[in-house]
Amino acid sequence: MTADVVAQLVAELGDRVDVTDAARAAVRADKSGHAATGMPLAVVHARDVADVQTTLRIASATGTPVVPRGAGTGLAGGANTGLGEIALSLRAMDRILSVSSDDLVAVVEPGILNADLNAALAPHGLWWAPDPASRDISTVGGNIATGAGGLLCAKYGVVRDAVLGVDLVLADGRLLRLGHRTVKGVTGLDLTSLVIGSEGILGVVVGATLKLRRLVPGATRTLAATFADVRDAAAAASAVTAAGVQPAIMELMDAACLAAAHRLLELPAPTPGAAQLTVQTDGPAATVEAETIAAVLTAAGGNVRVAADDAEAEQLWTVRRSMHPAMETLGTTLIEDVSVPRSALPAMFDEIARIEAAYGLPIPTVCHAGDGNLHPNFIFDGPDVPEVVWEAAEDLFRSALRLGGTLTGEHGVGVLKRRWLADELGDDQWRLQREIARVFDPAGILNPGKVFAP
Amino acid sequence: MTADVVAQLVAELGDRVDVTDAARAAVRADKSGHAATGMPLAVVHARDVADVQTTLRIASATGTPVVPRGAGTGLAGGANTGLGEIALSLRAMDRILSVSSDDLVAVVEPGILNADLNAALAPHGLWWAPDPASRDISTVGGNIATGAGGLLCAKYGVVRDAVLGVDLVLADGRLLRLGHRTVKGVTGLDLTSLVIGSEGILGVVVGATLKLRRLVPGATRTLAATFADVRDAAAAASAVTAAGVQPAIMELMDAACLAAAHRLLELPAPTPGAAQLTVQTDGPAATVEAETIAAVLTAAGGNVRVAADDAEAEQLWTVRRSMHPAMETLGTTLIEDVSVPRSALPAMFDEIARIEAAYGLPIPTVCHAGDGNLHPNFIFDGPDVPEVVWEAAEDLFRSALRLGGTLTGEHGVGVLKRRWLADELGDDQWRLQREIARVFDPAGILNPGKVFAP
Repeated sequence: MTADVVAQLVAELGDRVDVTDAARAAVRADKSGHAATGMPLAVVHARDVADVQTTLRIASATGTPVVPRGAGTGLAGGANTGLGEIALSLRAMDRILSVSSDDLVAVVEPGILNADLNAALAPHGLWWAPDPASRDISTVGGNIATGAGGLLCAKYGVVRDAVLGVDLVLADGRLLRLGHRTVKGVTGLDLTSLVIGSEGILGVVVGATLKLRRLVPGATRTLAATFADVRDAAAAASAVTAAGVQPAIMELMDAACLAAAHRLLELPAPTPGAAQLTVQTDGPAATVEAETIAAVLTAAGGNVRVAADDAEAEQLWTVRRSMHPAMETLGTTLIEDVSVPRSALPAMFDEIARIEAAYGLPIPTVCHAGDGNLHPNFIFDGPDVPEVVWEAAEDLFRSALRLGGTLTGEHGVGVLKRRWLADELGDDQWRLQREIARVFDPAGILNPGKVFAP
Repeated sequence: MTADVVAQLVAELGDRVDVTDAARAAVRADKSGHAATGMPLAVVHARDVADVQTTLRIASATGTPVVPRGAGTGLAGGANTGLGEIALSLRAMDRILSVSSDDLVAVVEPGILNADLNAALAPHGLWWAPDPASRDISTVGGNIATGAGGLLCAKYGVVRDAVLGVDLVLADGRLLRLGHRTVKGVTGLDLTSLVIGSEGILGVVVGATLKLRRLVPGATRTLAATFADVRDAAAAASAVTAAGVQPAIMELMDAACLAAAHRLLELPAPTPGAAQLTVQTDGPAATVEAETIAAVLTAAGGNVRVAADDAEAEQLWTVRRSMHPAMETLGTTLIEDVSVPRSALPAMFDEIARIEAAYGLPIPTVCHAGDGNLHPNFIFDGPDVPEVVWEAAEDLFRSALRLGGTLTGEHGVGVLKRRWLADELGDDQWRLQREIARVFDPAGILNPGKVFAP
């Protein structure tokens, strides 16, 4: 039977089907550091919509699970492909089909990298706002499938705000065109939004109509402020939001993150315990806003440094950008992704300190403080997540929920958070969501075991 | 059986159940001018979530259709309640439960009027951006149920962009809390977005967590420009968008609308054939943007007048706001609601002119030119829509779809557009959408016959 599936794929798709060990091993994991059990059957590199439809028709006919995949940069295991499954890569479908500067709309294939799209839009004076930290290496289709966030979300929105329509191939191979090309449109149910963040369980995104923005005119301004501890820094970030200024980016690094980044970059060690906020303003009022924010941060006890020029700004952002490599120097990491209302940031950092003490674990945390999205990094030795880390993570999730927050702000549920999904949704909603998924995919061949625990 | 349903409602809900002829007659219609056939069983004025749950439990047990209703200001017949149905009014549930200025979030009951909410938010320096023309008389719950648009959408977004979560009572009376309170959140499927614009067929919205904005600082600027004909005005509006300036509001009135409004207001008659654009800019750059737009409109052949002060601006907006009463002086109206990509506006006005000639009908049209949403008004005598008007409307819908547009930008499908829904969605998607609705409401008691033709 298994041989039969692969034979059918090869017969219809030829060299787009890769059955080498190397290719099959590569799709077992994403960037979460976690891998699926066993080897997948094959990797299909789709070149057009028809390839996707053919793959799904064969999969449906044979009851074979299919895992859609972009660049494999996910952090929740959503694209991990295991024993008996087909990995369906959209990465080679990377064309920009049209850009309308007049309508602020682009139509693209899903495999284009976010950064490549934005490089192509820039000469038109346009950009697509979603900016996950992975934007240089992640695809637009993956951004849509995970409902990716990023650094600019508080000011410029999330993926849901930036997609007008998607083309979706269902499990049985039928193609649906969802959404519209217009600013407004309320014809029927909003299935476009339902697909955004659905992590491959409803269908395979084979095209997208994106809502663009004009490039923000003028230079950006950057400032950094250090605080005695992370709670002060979090309170200062909340004060910025409460003051009514809107930074483009506002990032928080706790003491452990800041120290690790400084070590990695061979910079002088920061004051022990000190946490840092790094802020960018943009647009015509960038300078005025930077001054206002500097005043708020100073009043909140911060030691503020406004970058005098682009070089100094770049230096400040380099510290923030070195976070992931800096964490890797500490051990194996499990990156979490809770989000809380912005006013709850100080309380959430109190919870993290409590959990560090209770479980005896370091949890260096970086935070998109402008929108309340935290990435606590659990650090441990060896390849497998120790049970104590899962226990601490569960405590963390429950703390975030108690504070009015959510399990995942931008990474998605995948396999790593599925066991807590019902805690947030409630059992009734959990079942309803699974029934909705079954309408799209009655046989359950699309990304089985992801999002909803089996 | 029927008597039994009403008796059960009265037994459990007492004076919240209104069975007077006047009350039952009033809920047969919305503001579309169309009414349901026959008299409903009763009107339930829910005062809290438990009332809504009780009503739906009784309705489910007895298989009685329920039509949720806000203020009844819809324009597609979506809240019209007829023979054998219960109207479930949320209008009395009009409390603001919390406002968080720090988090830019408000939690409200669905029956509060949009304008009342904004009046209450203003002292906090906040507002909720959705601004349907009906905002003084329409409810937030109705705005959510229809996915309402408005005048400010191109700059400040539609309802979908301004709602973080909804509380939903299902057909069987269970309460679900959908969405989140945080800027980011991708836990499971985005059912909040699915409910927005679902017109009461998935459940009854009994609460909403709204995403607020800070009030835009500074004074607004207003200008008006007249053009030789509507095509020139539409081309000029497209030129404004293409020039990269973002007006807060940009409204277009064709010659018939402009003339009718001037007659109603007893202003001097405009130049025959002349169409008008009225534009508002806001924010710190309001004056500069108004000047840029004035230059674009002048270059496009417009005769531009920039309002010198608020009084003059108010005069210009009075002309636009008198549109609905002005249309009523011409006869009975069927207000349509197509939307097209902004660059297609001139072509859509060509289509309207063609349809006017082909069917011998006047179709005065007003248009949210900033976002491409047109409201062609079909004018006729007497209470019933003549068949020729439906034929012309169908021609209009197909023209909008051909131009990359949509059947309804902001009014919804209701009963008036349901026969064309499958034309836009395609049969596969139409069936999929109906199956999704059945997951929420297996017996089909919620607003039956709306959105999906029976």
